[in-house]
Amino acid sequence: MKTQVAIIGAGPSGLLLGQLLHLQGIDTVILEARSPDYVLGRIRAGVLEQGTVDLLREAQASGRMDREGLVHDGFELAFSGRRERIDLKGLTGGKTVMVYGQTEVTRDLMEARAKCGAKSIYEASDVQLHDMYSDSPRVTFVKDGETVELECDYIAGCDGYHGVSRKSVPQDKLKIFERVYPFGWLGVLSDTPPVAHELIYANHERGFALCSQRSETRSRYYIQAPLDTDINAWDDTRFWSELKSRLPQETAAQLVTGPSIEKSIAPLRSFVAEPMKFGNLFLVGDAAHIVPPTGAKGLNLAASDVYTLYHVMRKNYQEDRPELLEKYSEICLRRIWKAERFSWWMTSLLHRFDGDAFSQRMQQAELEYYTQSDAGRRTIAENYVGLPYEAIE
Amino acid sequence: MKTQVAIIGAGPSGLLLGQLLHLQGIDTVILEARSPDYVLGRIRAGVLEQGTVDLLREAQASGRMDREGLVHDGFELAFSGRRERIDLKGLTGGKTVMVYGQTEVTRDLMEARAKCGAKSIYEASDVQLHDMYSDSPRVTFVKDGETVELECDYIAGCDGYHGVSRKSVPQDKLKIFERVYPFGWLGVLSDTPPVAHELIYANHERGFALCSQRSETRSRYYIQAPLDTDINAWDDTRFWSELKSRLPQETAAQLVTGPSIEKSIAPLRSFVAEPMKFGNLFLVGDAAHIVPPTGAKGLNLAASDVYTLYHVMRKNYQEDRPELLEKYSEICLRRIWKAERFSWWMTSLLHRFDGDAFSQRMQQAELEYYTQSDAGRRTIAENYVGLPYEAIE
Repeated sequence: MKTQVAIIGAGPSGLLLGQLLHLQGIDTVILEARSPDYVLGRIRAGVLEQGTVDLLREAQASGRMDREGLVHDGFELAFSGRRERIDLKGLTGGKTVMVYGQTEVTRDLMEARAKCGAKSIYEASDVQLHDMYSDSPRVTFVKDGETVELECDYIAGCDGYHGVSRKSVPQDKLKIFERVYPFGWLGVLSDTPPVAHELIYANHERGFALCSQRSETRSRYYIQAPLDTDINAWDDTRFWSELKSRLPQETAAQLVTGPSIEKSIAPLRSFVAEPMKFGNLFLVGDAAHIVPPTGAKGLNLAASDVYTLYHVMRKNYQEDRPELLEKYSEICLRRIWKAERFSWWMTSLLHRFDGDAFSQRMQQAELEYYTQSDAGRRTIAENYVGLPYEAIE
Repeated sequence: MKTQVAIIGAGPSGLLLGQLLHLQGIDTVILEARSPDYVLGRIRAGVLEQGTVDLLREAQASGRMDREGLVHDGFELAFSGRRERIDLKGLTGGKTVMVYGQTEVTRDLMEARAKCGAKSIYEASDVQLHDMYSDSPRVTFVKDGETVELECDYIAGCDGYHGVSRKSVPQDKLKIFERVYPFGWLGVLSDTPPVAHELIYANHERGFALCSQRSETRSRYYIQAPLDTDINAWDDTRFWSELKSRLPQETAAQLVTGPSIEKSIAPLRSFVAEPMKFGNLFLVGDAAHIVPPTGAKGLNLAASDVYTLYHVMRKNYQEDRPELLEKYSEICLRRIWKAERFSWWMTSLLHRFDGDAFSQRMQQAELEYYTQSDAGRRTIAENYVGLPYEAIE
């Protein structure tokens, strides 16, 4: 089997890259270890930056998002019993975010790929990367009991933090930067109307809380919880009660509760592996970096890697610009470190840490300063809607 | 002896408060444990916010400052081998800072007080505060071997971190917030022209450095050093060499060195004691709070306390507004916590900590983001020139 770009992983970044390249006439094959249903069963956040929205439109996979997605002009920070709005649109000269679940993004991209006839191979097991430093890299995998070889020009590793792509590179060439936070997010999905039209990020002495939403009838709420939390000890009643205790009184009073349809706990981690290019293997998204979910940067950061790889590949094939491939890693990393900074900062700002009294006052002082100062609010807004992509020239 | 406001301490905040009250016809006596020469021998930073400059003008002690002080429209951040300017004037709609040594401020205020005939008692030993919770507080002290009693309406504790004022309050009424940083500043004063017209704050892997100045012919340089540094191990040659190693190459090449005329090491500390009013005792400046010197907020924060106490006292005496006295502590603390935040942040941003690799990349990412973003630069600039004073109404 032969292709130009072998894409490892059929999550949103692999699928998005595949669609964009396909529309430029560049042939791709996507290999995915799991089944389509498994991939669609993963529940993830759904706040899309303008740049991500634009890419989905360019990929011609935005029809349902444009109909059903909720455009948010702002979000709120709750602390000290009050709510302060960050007017994204006003503070960034008109930029907004789109609330549209990652699962839906994945579904739309899957359908677009099926429609255009580009090849995806699901349930491909024992995926192995070969000869990434040569001009003819290969990927082998087992499908229906048979070993298959896929020859290609380039490999795009879009298979996430636990995927095979990063694990396949010489480990002594990787520089790892990591921060594991001493808590997780306990999340509940429920078919209840959201407590507010916009997202509310709450700092409270009992811990962080987030009121978010997937649609006008489906809510997603999170509370900060210890990493060793036993999810069975958290029935719905306890969850709703704890959530309410962390919100301003009026907000808590407006909260509509209902049975949870999903409940899970997720750890928070900051992680960057440098570089992102190894010969003809390019790491994309979670395969190279993880952000804690505060600030909703995970999918968006993967999309900005896709943007860079897409344009680098396009110019390489169409304008014979192989030197651009060499810039992939540094272009991506400049933006990644800024998003890592913002995600780390939002996490530090909003969660409860076992810090000393001075640290806690610094957190309060940051909340007061950044919400009261126009410049402070602008720093939050411009990061939240997404810093600009670097032009590939 | 009797007065309206007994001021403990003849440093810049006690003297400034004394002048402002005197000009409003409010009688003060200043008690100072040391001699005038000792007070003037203390070397301190000299970057004055616009608000501090305005207060010195209102105190009619600004003649020499207005002639000799250097107005700075910006300062620079040096990192990764380059210098990035923070255009204070452009970013704040015209605000600037004034470089004028704290020693000079103190001298000018001393002279103004001597001229106007208001009473200062130097070398007053064994100062004790009495009955601060009554309507007739008293201060006793020993002068020339005799115990003297000073009756007053109010006591202003302007005697610094180590002074008697904060130590005189019931310790169980104090809430203390503190951070001691694991390094100090090794400083050198020299009669050499400054390396640049503006201040340069340098982040370097060998540690922080600061190029500052007292005048066009007198420079003040600092380098981050371990707290247990033996100052005798640092002759001038070693200091200049280490300083140069922490500056961008071109800057180091332009540095004019010369014999040091003062060399000392100072610890860095963040400290806030709450509240700042105890009956009829009001703590002012360093008596209640300390900031690390990064950001030059120490004297300016004392001046903003003076501003608040001055207006509260003035309205109390002239308009019979005793309820304003009750607001002193909360008004001061709102601004203090913002300045504590900025000083802590600038310190965290610019010094070398024994942190993990992720923390060090976060520091680099903050330097990149805050210098590249207009909003980021504005947050630095508006804090550096001084956040607005709260109106006392």
